[in-house]
Amino acid sequence: MNRKGLLLVVSAPSGCGKGTILAEVCKRMSCQVSVSATTRSPRPGEIDGQHYYFVTKAEFEERIQNNQMLEYVEYCGNYYGTPKDKVEALRAQGVHVILEIEVQGAMQILKRCPDAVSIFIVPPSIETLRHRLEKRGTEDSATIEKRIAAAATEMQSAVHYQYVVMNDALENAVDDFCAIVRAETCKQRPNE
Amino acid sequence: MNRKGLLLVVSAPSGCGKGTILAEVCKRMSCQVSVSATTRSPRPGEIDGQHYYFVTKAEFEERIQNNQMLEYVEYCGNYYGTPKDKVEALRAQGVHVILEIEVQGAMQILKRCPDAVSIFIVPPSIETLRHRLEKRGTEDSATIEKRIAAAATEMQSAVHYQYVVMNDALENAVDDFCAIVRAETCKQRPNE
Repeated sequence: MNRKGLLLVVSAPSGCGKGTILAEVCKRMSCQVSVSATTRSPRPGEIDGQHYYFVTKAEFEERIQNNQMLEYVEYCGNYYGTPKDKVEALRAQGVHVILEIEVQGAMQILKRCPDAVSIFIVPPSIETLRHRLEKRGTEDSATIEKRIAAAATEMQSAVHYQYVVMNDALENAVDDFCAIVRAETCKQRPNE
Repeated sequence: MNRKGLLLVVSAPSGCGKGTILAEVCKRMSCQVSVSATTRSPRPGEIDGQHYYFVTKAEFEERIQNNQMLEYVEYCGNYYGTPKDKVEALRAQGVHVILEIEVQGAMQILKRCPDAVSIFIVPPSIETLRHRLEKRGTEDSATIEKRIAAAATEMQSAVHYQYVVMNDALENAVDDFCAIVRAETCKQRPNE
């Protein structure tokens, strides 16, 4: 049974360990994190097709016109979005494609792709999140408080997702995530 | 988070290895197979509360009247069914309760309990099923053909279930089943 790969839409407040969880999931299962397209210039060290697909504004707008973006946002004068053809090519090979995406983009995808599987990652508590951000030591305390306030707001969006994975311990969160992927491959989808 | 246990409704054509899969799942996870109530007499060696809850016809009918059966059928003059109180007591303790049940009873439960998780177990093919039944050697070839015809019909009911687990190899089927249970505990349920 060479089944089409899943489309997994994943959001999380920053500081939840989303990147670490997804890296581990991709090691264990036939999953790949989707690479976004953007019109902003590459920064030093950024590789086309790995960090982003770097395209011109004209190309990006043509893709939007031709319905070739699964979702996109404009931010600080640049476009960022998910190229449909890349996602579909992977899924056709049976690879589960993970879209690591903020809430607004996720809502666009869930509307357009009813077969998408949505997962929201949460920290066990705001206190744990504060502790992690402090331990990381990359931001001053005012910035940390701002991020925590933002996380508390973002967590209200969790209700729009089918699954919630709590990152209480990395191993548990990865096991939960992998179980969701495996279970979803056993799920009956009327349109397939 | 002391969450209520899941209600898992499991059906399968006979010969699919359902019993073996469920026994293994119950070893690995906090799951228990529900014990049915019946009005038939205990057979030698059958223990009340382990193989069945043996009750009188009057008791059973009173339970039906009082809406205390999750589902029931009448078969050869006896009642068989699932006592609601036992299931709910286990679920309240966080135990996932497995109802091993034929399609008709399963449909009753799915109507009454919209939060139930339904799983249908299938053999990889009718050929494999025939091979397993022949290998078991407990039935003559006419009976085997009858059971295979019945299985082919029963498998059409799979569409009514949320998940399909294929028993191609025991270990795979058990892993699939456990993944479904784990994923469902991460699923958001609006009414909880």
